[in-house]
Amino acid sequence: MIDSGATAFILVCTAMVMLMTPGVGLFYGGLVRRKNLISMIALSFIAFSLVSIQWIVCGYSLSFGPDILGLVGGLEHAFLQGIGMDGDGIPDLLFVAFQMVFAGLTLAIVTSGVAERIKISSFLIFGLLWTTLVYDPLAHWAWGGGWAAQLGALDFAGGTVVHISSGFSALALALVIGKRLGFGGHGMEPNNIPLALLGGALLWFGWFGFNAGSALAADGLAANAFIVTNISAASGALAWLCAAWIRGRPGSIGMISGAIAGLVAITPAAGFVGPMAAIAIGAGAGLFCYGALVFRVRKGLDESLDAWAIHGMGGIFGALATGVFAVAAIGGVDGLLYGNPGQIFIQLVDVGVVVAYSFGVTYVIARVVDAAMGLRVTEDEEYVGLDIAQHGESVRV
Amino acid sequence: MIDSGATAFILVCTAMVMLMTPGVGLFYGGLVRRKNLISMIALSFIAFSLVSIQWIVCGYSLSFGPDILGLVGGLEHAFLQGIGMDGDGIPDLLFVAFQMVFAGLTLAIVTSGVAERIKISSFLIFGLLWTTLVYDPLAHWAWGGGWAAQLGALDFAGGTVVHISSGFSALALALVIGKRLGFGGHGMEPNNIPLALLGGALLWFGWFGFNAGSALAADGLAANAFIVTNISAASGALAWLCAAWIRGRPGSIGMISGAIAGLVAITPAAGFVGPMAAIAIGAGAGLFCYGALVFRVRKGLDESLDAWAIHGMGGIFGALATGVFAVAAIGGVDGLLYGNPGQIFIQLVDVGVVVAYSFGVTYVIARVVDAAMGLRVTEDEEYVGLDIAQHGESVRV
Amino acid sequence: MIDSGATAFILVCTAMVMLMTPGVGLFYGGLVRRKNLISMIALSFIAFSLVSIQWIVCGYSLSFGPDILGLVGGLEHAFLQGIGMDGDGIPDLLFVAFQMVFAGLTLAIVTSGVAERIKISSFLIFGLLWTTLVYDPLAHWAWGGGWAAQLGALDFAGGTVVHISSGFSALALALVIGKRLGFGGHGMEPNNIPLALLGGALLWFGWFGFNAGSALAADGLAANAFIVTNISAASGALAWLCAAWIRGRPGSIGMISGAIAGLVAITPAAGFVGPMAAIAIGAGAGLFCYGALVFRVRKGLDESLDAWAIHGMGGIFGALATGVFAVAAIGGVDGLLYGNPGQIFIQLVDVGVVVAYSFGVTYVIARVVDAAMGLRVTEDEEYVGLDIAQHGESVRV
Repeated sequence: MIDSGATAFILVCTAMVMLMTPGVGLFYGGLVRRKNLISMIALSFIAFSLVSIQWIVCGYSLSFGPDILGLVGGLEHAFLQGIGMDGDGIPDLLFVAFQMVFAGLTLAIVTSGVAERIKISSFLIFGLLWTTLVYDPLAHWAWGGGWAAQLGALDFAGGTVVHISSGFSALALALVIGKRLGFGGHGMEPNNIPLALLGGALLWFGWFGFNAGSALAADGLAANAFIVTNISAASGALAWLCAAWIRGRPGSIGMISGAIAGLVAITPAAGFVGPMAAIAIGAGAGLFCYGALVFRVRKGLDESLDAWAIHGMGGIFGALATGVFAVAAIGGVDGLLYGNPGQIFIQLVDVGVVVAYSFGVTYVIARVVDAAMGLRVTEDEEYVGLDIAQHGESVRV
Repeated sequence: MIDSGATAFILVCTAMVMLMTPGVGLFYGGLVRRKNLISMIALSFIAFSLVSIQWIVCGYSLSFGPDILGLVGGLEHAFLQGIGMDGDGIPDLLFVAFQMVFAGLTLAIVTSGVAERIKISSFLIFGLLWTTLVYDPLAHWAWGGGWAAQLGALDFAGGTVVHISSGFSALALALVIGKRLGFGGHGMEPNNIPLALLGGALLWFGWFGFNAGSALAADGLAANAFIVTNISAASGALAWLCAAWIRGRPGSIGMISGAIAGLVAITPAAGFVGPMAAIAIGAGAGLFCYGALVFRVRKGLDESLDAWAIHGMGGIFGALATGVFAVAAIGGVDGLLYGNPGQIFIQLVDVGVVVAYSFGVTYVIARVVDAAMGLRVTEDEEYVGLDIAQHGESVRV
Repeated sequence: MIDSGATAFILVCTAMVMLMTPGVGLFYGGLVRRKNLISMIALSFIAFSLVSIQWIVCGYSLSFGPDILGLVGGLEHAFLQGIGMDGDGIPDLLFVAFQMVFAGLTLAIVTSGVAERIKISSFLIFGLLWTTLVYDPLAHWAWGGGWAAQLGALDFAGGTVVHISSGFSALALALVIGKRLGFGGHGMEPNNIPLALLGGALLWFGWFGFNAGSALAADGLAANAFIVTNISAASGALAWLCAAWIRGRPGSIGMISGAIAGLVAITPAAGFVGPMAAIAIGAGAGLFCYGALVFRVRKGLDESLDAWAIHGMGGIFGALATGVFAVAAIGGVDGLLYGNPGQIFIQLVDVGVVVAYSFGVTYVIARVVDAAMGLRVTEDEEYVGLDIAQHGESVRV
C-alpha cells in the first residue's frame, strides 16, 4: 500500500538531495581559483548526469538487487526490470529515484581530490568505474542486505556509503593525480566566498531531505532525524568557528565547513540518537574535522577541497559516535552509553572495511585510468585554467 | 475529500515551481551582457507578479472555467468566485495556486525574445495581453476541457501550454522588436556563467514540482513523472555536451541547455512514458535543440536566449515523442511503439495548432503594442544598458 | 495520532524556512558595501546556529512551556525534556524544529540594524540575550497560550513575533550602535544587486513554508495561506515598483522590497483573509513600507537595511489589516469589514505592547552589552571592512 504522506515527503526529499549536487558545485567552485570556477560547477552536473543514467542501467540493481554473498546485488533489476509504480509505503520507482540522487551526489563530492586539474574525458570514465565498483557495492553492504547490514552496522543515511567513501576516494585520487602546480608555493585563496556560502546553504537545506528522508516515511523518526540534523550542523558551525577564532580569525568558510562536518557526522546517527547527543556529535565533528584539515595542510597533501578531512574523517567520527550515542527508544539499538559496547566494535569493523575498500579500489581505478588515458590536463591547460582550456568559457571580472 | 499527502505534495510543488521563475531570471541574467543582468532578473519577477494578479482576476477562470466551444473558459470563477478551501483530493484553492505559478513562469520564459531591449512599460501591457489571450486559452485547450483535451492530445505537464507557447511567442516577439544593436557584429558573451548555472540548477530542482506535481497526487504516477524527469535531464545534458564536444569544446552552458531541453521534452510525456524511454527522449531533445540553436544562429535570428530553440523546439520534440513512447500501463494511453499510430497524428494536430496560434497571436499583440507605445527602448538606453537606463541600478565590478 | 501528510508538509516547510536565513544573509549581503558582504552572510548563519542551540536548551520551553501568568513558558521542557516522536497531527519534535527555524530567522533579520559595524563577539552575547528575553516571551504571548492569545489577538504566522519584533529591535540596535562612518556623506550603494535579488527569491520561496506551514496541516487552510501569500507578495512588488516609478525609476531592489513588504503584511493574516483581501494588503503594505523607508532616510536614521521600515512597519500594517479583513469562513474570526470592529482594538493593543516591549527591551540589552564589551568594531576595522577585519576573508574582484 502506498502512503500518500510518505510518498509526498520522499518525492520532495529527492528533489532536495538533487539540489545538493549543484550545492557542492557552487561550494567547490567558490573555493578554487577563478579560472576553474565554471569547471567545478560543471563537474558536479556531469557527475550527477552520468550517475543518473548508470543508476537505472545497472547501479540500482548492483546496490539493491538480490544479495550475492553479502557483497553486491544481482542484475535482476538492470534497466529497472520489475520496478513499478506500486510499492510498500512509497512507490518502488520513488525509492529508485531517492537512491539515484544519493549516488549522483557522492561522485560530485569526490571531485574535491582532482579539482583544477582533471581531464573531463578521464573523469567520465573514472566516474563510471567508480560509481559501479565503489559506490554500488557500498550501498549494497549498508542498505541492500549486504554483510554490513547483516552484521548490524548502523548507517542511517550514508555515513559510510556517501561520506567515508567519497572522502577517502578523494584522497586516493589526489595521491594519484598529484598536487596542483604551485601548490604550497603560491596562494590559492577562494575566488568567491559568497558563492561558496550559498553552496553551503543549499547543502544544509538539502541535507534535511537526505537525512530525514532516509526514514522513508513522514513520521516521528523523520522528525527526529530532521531536528538532530539541524542541531548538529549548528553545533559544528559554532565549534569550528570558535576553534578557528582561538587560532586566528573566525572565517566564514571555517564556519560553513564546521556546519558540513556536523551534517556529515550526524548522517549515520540521525535515526538513532536524540537532540542532546546531536550537540555533542556536531561540536565533536567540527573540532575533529578542523584538526584533520590542519593535519592535511601540514602534511602538504593536496586533497584540494577537503572532502577527506570533512566527509571522510567526519564520516568516521559520525559512524563511531553512532555506536556511542545510539538509544533504543529512537532507532531500536543501544550504543555504548546505553550499555551496548559491542556496537562500537561493529561500527569500527564497518568503518575499517569501508575506508580500506574505498581508498584501495579508487586508487587502483585511478591508476588504471591514468595509465590508459591520463587523468590530468597538460601543464599549459592547468596554467590557463580549466574553464577556458576545457570548456571554452570564462568568468568575467 | 482532501488527501493530506496529496495536498502536502502539491503545496510544496507550487513553491518549487515558483522558484523556477527567478531561476529563469538568473539563467537569462547570466547569459546577457552585464549591463542588462539586473533587467533580466527584474523582468522575471515582474512577469510573475503581474500574472499572479491577472490569474485570480480572470486568468484562472478563462483557463478552467466552464468550457465555451472548446476554446476558452467562462468567467464564472473570475475573482475566484466559487473557489474555496475544500476540493477533490486537493483544495480547489491549491489547484488555483499550482496553475498560477505555471502561468507566471511561462511569461518569464518569453522574455528571451526581447532581452536587453524591451521597455518595462510595454512589457507590462504586452504581458497582460499575452497571458490573457495566449496562455489562458492554451491552458484551457489542454487541461480545462478544451478541444485538445477532447481530441485526446496528451500533454502531462505543459509541453504545449508552457513550452511550445513560450518558445514560439519569444520568436514572434524577437521578429517584431528586431535584433539587438550590434548583433552579429560584436561579441555578446555571457557575463556570468556561474549565475546562469545556478539558475539552471533551480530550474532542474523546480521542474520536479512542475512535472511530478502535475499528477496532482503523491502516488506512483508522480514517482514515475519524477524519475523520468531526472533521467531525461541527465540524458539531455550528456547528449548536448557530447555534440558540442564533437564540434568544439564541451561548454557548461551547452550542458545545462541540454538538461533544459531534456526537461522540456519530458514535460508532456512524464505521466505517459517509462524510464528507458526517458533516456531516448532526453538525448533526442538535447541533439534536436542543439541543432535548432545552430540553425537559429546561422539564420542570424536574434531570439536572444533561445527560448525558441530549447522550449519551442524541445516542446515539439516532446509532444511528438509522447505520441511515440506512451504506454498504457503508465498513463492509460499507448503510443506508436505500442501499436497506436493514431496518437502521433493527434499530437501533430495539437502541436501545429499551438505553434500557429501562439506565434500568430503573439505577433499581432506585439505589433499592436509596438504601434501604440513602442516595444523597444531608445538607442541610447540600449547602449547604456537597461539596468542603468530603466532601473537606475548597476552591477558593480 | 500522526498524520503523515501533515508531517510531510511541516518537515518540508521547516527546511524551507531554514533556507530563508541564508536568504536574508544574501539579501543583506548584496545591499551593503562589498567589504562587508561576507560579514552579512556569516552573521545570518551565526544567528541561526546560535539560536538553534539556545532553542533546545531553553528557548522552546520559555516559548511553549506551561504558561506563567500569561508572560512566559516554564522550564519543564528545557533540554527538550518530555518531547518525543509522537504527537497530535505532527510529531512534537517536528513542532519544536518548525518553531526553531522561525526563531533563528528572526535574529538574522535583526542584523539589519548593526550592519557593517557589529563585533561578532558582542553579537553572540547580544543574540543570546535577545532571543531569550525578547523572542521567546513574544512567541509565548502569541502562540504559547500567553496574554495575547488569551485576549484573542490574531497572528497566524508571526507578524508580531517575527516581524514587528525584529523590525523594532533593529531600530533600537541602530540607535544604540550609531550610524556607520560616512553615513549621509558618502554613497553606500548596494554592491551586488543580483545576489540581493537571489536572496529575495529564496525569501519568497521559503515564505510559503513559513505561512502555509503555520496551518500545521496540509489542508484547505494551508492552501488559503499559500495563495494569499503569493498574491500579497506580487501585489506588494507591483505597488512599490509603481510608487518608485512615479518618483523616479522602478528599481529592482524596490520591487523585491515591495514583495517582502507584502509577504510581511500577509504573515499575520494568511489564515484569516481571502485572496481578494490579499491584493489590498500587499499593495497597501508596499506603499506603506515605501513611505516608511522614505521617512527613515529623511530622518537620517541608519537602520541600515530597513528591517524597521519593511518588517517592523509592514508587520504593524499586517496586524491591523488582519483586524480589518479577517473573515470567519476562513479562520473563524471576523474583522472590521465583517462586522467585528472590536478585533481592530485587540490588534492595536497587541501591536502596541509588542512594539514597546521589543524596542524597549532590545534597547536595554544593547546598552548593557555595549557598556560591557562594546557593540561596535573600531574605526579602523570599520574602514577596512568586517570581511577582512573580523573574518580574515575578502570578496575578490
